[in-house]
Amino acid sequence: MYITVLGSAAGGGYPQWNCNHPNSRRARAKDVAAPMRTQSSLAVSCDGERWTLFNASPDLRQQINDNPILHPHGGLRASPLKAVVLTNADVDHVTGLLSLRESQAFNVYATARVQLVLAQNSIFNVLNPQYVARISMSLEQSLAVSTADGAALGFEVVPFAVPGKVALWLEDASKGDNFGSVAEDTIALEVRESGRIKFFYIPACARMTPALAARIQGAPLVFFDGTLYTDDEMVRDGVGHKTGQRMGHMSVSGAEGTVAALSHLQISRKIFIHINTTNPILIAGTPERQAVESSGWEVSFDGMRLEV
Amino acid sequence: MYITVLGSAAGGGYPQWNCNHPNSRRARAKDVAAPMRTQSSLAVSCDGERWTLFNASPDLRQQINDNPILHPHGGLRASPLKAVVLTNADVDHVTGLLSLRESQAFNVYATARVQLVLAQNSIFNVLNPQYVARISMSLEQSLAVSTADGAALGFEVVPFAVPGKVALWLEDASKGDNFGSVAEDTIALEVRESGRIKFFYIPACARMTPALAARIQGAPLVFFDGTLYTDDEMVRDGVGHKTGQRMGHMSVSGAEGTVAALSHLQISRKIFIHINTTNPILIAGTPERQAVESSGWEVSFDGMRLEV
Repeated sequence: MYITVLGSAAGGGYPQWNCNHPNSRRARAKDVAAPMRTQSSLAVSCDGERWTLFNASPDLRQQINDNPILHPHGGLRASPLKAVVLTNADVDHVTGLLSLRESQAFNVYATARVQLVLAQNSIFNVLNPQYVARISMSLEQSLAVSTADGAALGFEVVPFAVPGKVALWLEDASKGDNFGSVAEDTIALEVRESGRIKFFYIPACARMTPALAARIQGAPLVFFDGTLYTDDEMVRDGVGHKTGQRMGHMSVSGAEGTVAALSHLQISRKIFIHINTTNPILIAGTPERQAVESSGWEVSFDGMRLEV
Repeated sequence: MYITVLGSAAGGGYPQWNCNHPNSRRARAKDVAAPMRTQSSLAVSCDGERWTLFNASPDLRQQINDNPILHPHGGLRASPLKAVVLTNADVDHVTGLLSLRESQAFNVYATARVQLVLAQNSIFNVLNPQYVARISMSLEQSLAVSTADGAALGFEVVPFAVPGKVALWLEDASKGDNFGSVAEDTIALEVRESGRIKFFYIPACARMTPALAARIQGAPLVFFDGTLYTDDEMVRDGVGHKTGQRMGHMSVSGAEGTVAALSHLQISRKIFIHINTTNPILIAGTPERQAVESSGWEVSFDGMRLEV
């Protein structure tokens, strides 16, 4: 399978529009150690010709322009993009659908809960239902991803729940500490080809559980939530009032963090994705970047290409 | 007043994601005669410090990155963007709101009908109502655009109806040829400073009427709908089945076209904006570009800066 990282940043991208954190200033100043990043999304393909998006970021139009694999060919109106798989209804994961106008055939896969949210927001009707099928995925059920005309794209996804929280814009403060979140609100994807696990895509995860650790043990490749380096860095740096835990993200560092939690698992490649503007691993040469790299992790970047 | 053209292309941008028209191929090939264009939007300011968007395109994050006037300064979380004025609910005019997350104060102005559409689409709740006020504009009533804390930004807009049609994703086929469109669905903006007309922003217009001609007569500057060069060019070029009239856009050329319709009016500067991938005026040196330029028109481009 071929994988291209279309975007490696968390919601808002790097730099975020209203963020004047030193990290963001370095990106705007075109510092080569701090390249700009669009919002997190993968393009996945078994044949290198027909591609599936994992999440549709608000930066999708720019991501398509920047990645020739997604340029149209073979017709006056055409696209190699054949399917989109959504892991939740976050603005940074669904807004790109609005850039996939109008009469191009592809499938949109999401849990029933996320499909309901899309149905309740009529703006997504810009996706012409004559061309775009919306297909519900069920947790723990393997799904063969296909083109709109039913041709198999050669791989299966198994959606599974991970600890997390409902999308910010769907939070219900009346429902207590978890804002009305249910299991389907934050899912990850196990990706299989010919029945064999190829990789995991886990762009949001609030904590490691024994079940999740057991599941990803032995995997050839894991993309994992790299939002924050430390739980309170947004508060500490004065750019926000929310901790990682409040936002549904475990941190990279610390005794309960991702590097520690995955250190005893046998995983061939471990790659951080969905990285927030405040996270020092964004920037080449920082002690934090060096720490994660010396722990066997990679930091994804826009345009990163992998084969598994 | 200062004006920067953030985006000069019609919905979908140039190139559009699934468009393989020769024009789009030239843009992707980085042909210097055919620079890429993002979706139509203006940034407007009286003081060069505080800016108002006229429409929020899906490319807004890229547009902010590309235009230093919109970079944050003066605080860790800050933005020179103080207000957004919407002319309709088209996906290419409202989607950018979703990139203006989360806790940044600004005002969103739109007609009551467009505000209702935003209210009915809960995804726009990503704009935190504690910070972002949604203010209804009334047709033909002058409105002083202000910051969220009520400071005047130094100019007024007078929204007025122009011939057009409701946004594609809101079309109601049961309601006949105009798909349920009403006057508020397509508006233009008359922009005044100290009571004097500075310019008109008319990114969509289905036909010239005597009232519209009389209104813009004598203006210092008009931005006008440049979607299509000829009404049937999308059909003729094999990239679509809709005419300009079906989409609510008059064409640039022809006896009923914009160049002819405005030729007898005294307008100091006339600039095409909202230009579709199929329009030959996108490309420097084409006979069509030469024809509009020799008729006294300019073709806007991303990053174009004006002072009026």
